[in-house]
Amino acid sequence: MAHEPVCTVMMKLLTISLKRPHAAYIEPGVLLSSSFFDDCRSVAERWVIIADHTTEKLFGHQLQKNLYERGLSVELVAFKSGEGQKTRQTKEWLEDQLLQKGFGRDCGVIGLGGGVVTDVAGFVASTYCRGLPLILIPTTLLGMVDASIGGKTGVNTPQGKNLIGTIYQPHAIWIDPLTLNSLPFVEYKNGLAECIKHGAILDPTYFAFLEEERVQILTKDPEVLPTLIGESCHIKKTIVEEDEREQGMRRLLNFGHTLGHALEVVTRYALPHGQAVAIGMVGESWLAKELGILPEDAFDRIYSILKNYGLPTNLPEGISASDLLQAMQHDKKAKAKVPRFVMLEEIGSCLECEGEYCQSVEPQLVERMIESLPRQ
Amino acid sequence: MAHEPVCTVMMKLLTISLKRPHAAYIEPGVLLSSSFFDDCRSVAERWVIIADHTTEKLFGHQLQKNLYERGLSVELVAFKSGEGQKTRQTKEWLEDQLLQKGFGRDCGVIGLGGGVVTDVAGFVASTYCRGLPLILIPTTLLGMVDASIGGKTGVNTPQGKNLIGTIYQPHAIWIDPLTLNSLPFVEYKNGLAECIKHGAILDPTYFAFLEEERVQILTKDPEVLPTLIGESCHIKKTIVEEDEREQGMRRLLNFGHTLGHALEVVTRYALPHGQAVAIGMVGESWLAKELGILPEDAFDRIYSILKNYGLPTNLPEGISASDLLQAMQHDKKAKAKVPRFVMLEEIGSCLECEGEYCQSVEPQLVERMIESLPRQ
Repeated sequence: MAHEPVCTVMMKLLTISLKRPHAAYIEPGVLLSSSFFDDCRSVAERWVIIADHTTEKLFGHQLQKNLYERGLSVELVAFKSGEGQKTRQTKEWLEDQLLQKGFGRDCGVIGLGGGVVTDVAGFVASTYCRGLPLILIPTTLLGMVDASIGGKTGVNTPQGKNLIGTIYQPHAIWIDPLTLNSLPFVEYKNGLAECIKHGAILDPTYFAFLEEERVQILTKDPEVLPTLIGESCHIKKTIVEEDEREQGMRRLLNFGHTLGHALEVVTRYALPHGQAVAIGMVGESWLAKELGILPEDAFDRIYSILKNYGLPTNLPEGISASDLLQAMQHDKKAKAKVPRFVMLEEIGSCLECEGEYCQSVEPQLVERMIESLPRQ
Repeated sequence: MAHEPVCTVMMKLLTISLKRPHAAYIEPGVLLSSSFFDDCRSVAERWVIIADHTTEKLFGHQLQKNLYERGLSVELVAFKSGEGQKTRQTKEWLEDQLLQKGFGRDCGVIGLGGGVVTDVAGFVASTYCRGLPLILIPTTLLGMVDASIGGKTGVNTPQGKNLIGTIYQPHAIWIDPLTLNSLPFVEYKNGLAECIKHGAILDPTYFAFLEEERVQILTKDPEVLPTLIGESCHIKKTIVEEDEREQGMRRLLNFGHTLGHALEVVTRYALPHGQAVAIGMVGESWLAKELGILPEDAFDRIYSILKNYGLPTNLPEGISASDLLQAMQHDKKAKAKVPRFVMLEEIGSCLECEGEYCQSVEPQLVERMIESLPRQ
């Protein structure tokens, strides 16, 4: 697990070597450091901070003031909070704000918020004047360990999540663990679901760390946060560097996500992403167990860690198996409408079959999997 | 001029070595060749042809039938013709068509039409499931020599042209000169404006060819079309290979376009692109002449060739200088609202100043330039 030193002082956490190599920085209070301001100034003198109404109030106005006091021109534009706002309409509204303010190619975009904000801000940046420089400041655990790394941007449509979007790398990612203090506990746990996923697919040591340090992690103990965030970022970085365009190994990150995305679609995004992925990991581990790929005891560890972290493992009420199956057939990974799943074969490793990390599963077995899930 | 052989038989015209290297093919009747069908099949088995109502009728139904008969699954989706349709709304409508038909990552997009169609189809392809394979079939001269090469995609907004878009390279470009037979003469001349621009900025031999072969070119003589198209494509390819992301040399292609785009904005795109660029080249050459950069006789050759090809060199009626200036201040190239222009210094070469190919011009001189243009 200890690939790179854990960050307790100001440091560059990671260099992410993609088409546009960029750095992720982590430190409590980093957004007040001269390194941060210098980095912004090196890219553009005029910025727009894109936030949602929550992060606008919590951090946006202060950040705008701080940048302004360092001589930068900064606008702040915020949209309504929530996954339901991750739409083409929100993107268009943001673009209209930038157009009306006369933003051109010499300006930059700061995405300040959770995954919804950084995904939408990244999408706006990637198509405005055919691409503006982008700095991401994730303020949720999910945003820090997942959404901000790898360059995926996008919006949802009624047919599914992230069906419209781009792959667009930021100039840099700045992570301040202090922002997690204001994060509601339920949102924090949504991020933990992705941390658990990262351990499950690639790093048994990190998975064991999550099992062992559960109490400190759940209480946001400042001693464990850098390891929690840093190692999880490192796993995501390792995978996306290997496969920027999701043609191979990056598929691993979809563990729990075929069913998870379908649950989000069927509940019209009322079910938060992390909770949907938690249930997804249970269902998809069940498939792997049933197909003789995943040992029973490994399945039990997946189920137990999710339970112990207070993440849902049951199917929400009023969900029909056929609706779920239909949503999975519309999933981006589906081939000829047959849904495909990442198959865990052990804690920390997944099945790879002739270069494919996703396996097609016949609809009857998928239906049995859905029925196997306990109902709320 | 003779960098690569001129195409009179089926051949690969160009290999365009960008992030995603791809080929441009040219031959009369090439869309009925097995090479074309094999190329489509090698990329995807399911395709959507995006056309406008004009190219749908002229070529779309036949192309769909031909591909279908070769065992491919092909949908045809067409939007209303015209620059006014190059909007975020049209993009969204096209996406909805694809979503409703259940298109996923394993599908491909064929853009069939002029620059409006290939720009919009390319933009749709670049953000649908974060990027589908794209084949371009330009059917106008402007589309062949300009829009299809270099990967620029985009849509217009009331504030300006192509302010929202991506740079996204196609898998291949297939050019059939026969499609020009059905192209209205006025549209053909719009393409010739870009050919003239290509000669003016980079290739004095090609510029002389355009002066000398004017009669054959204006009558669409099949003997000269391959040279007309092939050499113009070659100039564009040379520039975009040098500078995919428009940070340097690609700016040259904006000759005539700062004023040209402003004219399109002010006339709400009633003035066709080629005509706007023709007037733009006159105005911007005047600036270069006035600043002592371009010799008088070179200015005269620019003015004469446009006149002789029957392209407009006058300002359309009812255009105010202040509206034009304001539109230029919103141009993507503008820095701190000061418009910038490519400065011709000779037929076939432009001013480069410390790596910059665009020069800021004070508003007073821009206003004098506008006043210098003859009115209709």
